[in-house]
Amino acid sequence: MRYELYYWPSIQGRGEYVRLALEEAGADYRDVAREGGGMAAMNQLLESGDTPPFAPPFLKAGSLVIGQVANILLYLGPRHGLAPKSEAGRLWLHQLQLTIADLVVEIHDTHHPLGVTLYYEDQRTAAKKRTEEFWTERVPKFLGYFEKLLGDGNYLSGRRVSYVDLSLFQIVDGLRYAFPQRMKRFERKVPRLVALHDRVAARPNIAAYLASPRRIAFNEDGIFRHYKALDR
Amino acid sequence: MRYELYYWPSIQGRGEYVRLALEEAGADYRDVAREGGGMAAMNQLLESGDTPPFAPPFLKAGSLVIGQVANILLYLGPRHGLAPKSEAGRLWLHQLQLTIADLVVEIHDTHHPLGVTLYYEDQRTAAKKRTEEFWTERVPKFLGYFEKLLGDGNYLSGRRVSYVDLSLFQIVDGLRYAFPQRMKRFERKVPRLVALHDRVAARPNIAAYLASPRRIAFNEDGIFRHYKALDR
Repeated sequence: MRYELYYWPSIQGRGEYVRLALEEAGADYRDVAREGGGMAAMNQLLESGDTPPFAPPFLKAGSLVIGQVANILLYLGPRHGLAPKSEAGRLWLHQLQLTIADLVVEIHDTHHPLGVTLYYEDQRTAAKKRTEEFWTERVPKFLGYFEKLLGDGNYLSGRRVSYVDLSLFQIVDGLRYAFPQRMKRFERKVPRLVALHDRVAARPNIAAYLASPRRIAFNEDGIFRHYKALDR
Repeated sequence: MRYELYYWPSIQGRGEYVRLALEEAGADYRDVAREGGGMAAMNQLLESGDTPPFAPPFLKAGSLVIGQVANILLYLGPRHGLAPKSEAGRLWLHQLQLTIADLVVEIHDTHHPLGVTLYYEDQRTAAKKRTEEFWTERVPKFLGYFEKLLGDGNYLSGRRVSYVDLSLFQIVDGLRYAFPQRMKRFERKVPRLVALHDRVAARPNIAAYLASPRRIAFNEDGIFRHYKALDR
């Protein structure tokens, strides 16, 4: 089956967690909105059918249209060896992905504390305050949690890579892009997470993906945005 | 099996979506942190074991410890007739619950735009701006989405109530508490959602629960907080 991924064509954003899973799995997929006429197709699916998604990303898998990143990964995981088959294992992994989703919201809020529909330029002062709280309180809590879980295994659930490992790679990669100075200082507190990032980046399918034009560059329209004023 | 729910004992908060499902199902459960010594038991589970939750609420079901509201409901739904048995039906319902989870974060951010660890009193001005954006842009988008999905059926997935219907009851109930004036003006735009709220409230198990001391009153420590300055 050829999957169809629908997401904004010019940012990594939330779609990236799905792209990384599809790429690691070597799955056959189209990134529809990046093709000619793809945006129109995406908008049409958002407005039609009995189960329209609230927002991109969503994945078309045969007749299924699946929205919400963690839900898409819940579906893909056991089908592509990126999640355990047991219910207990799948629930645990999904729980971790939902915790990453919470972190992603907080990352986005650092530059948009007053609302997603306002410009960053109109909320700089609030963004500075929120960013300060994020790095003082929230980053240590979230990344410390995953650091503790990592233990001495190669990956979060042991020897086999899972979609959660791929998402944690993206978190570290994104924080490095958005907050290079802050992250440089913080990384010594999460050495296992940093090692996990490197281990994922070195996996053949991921390395090939990152070097390809399929990987969109970080930019200031996505979740991870580099604003110097927030990195001091 | 007797479930054990672990959540902060003095607020509805995120635990309420789980409580409503357990109550509608007539499930056997303990609300552990509300019992003597319960907080110590909750803290111990947060710090121990191979699969510690990131935060409350979490549910102990036999040997499983399940965190994240939507994940708990994903587990409970098909076991208690609150979700379809088919994979497509379960994924769709879960997707809706994750969209509700996104809305809950945004509701919380109205009074805490600069960060969860700072007091509301220290972010009043930012809270007013965020609340304005929330009611102008986000409430119409989120509630409009669910209103459109509701169609003419009794419940979201047809004749049978699901955990998503219970959560939507809580959203309407909470917005009425937090923003009585704004919500009064807005409700005429979402008549089906209001009717759904009333239909859920009238279900025998839910009505009994709401009238019992097990239902904690709304207050200014939870997700839905009534601050007059934000309701104008």
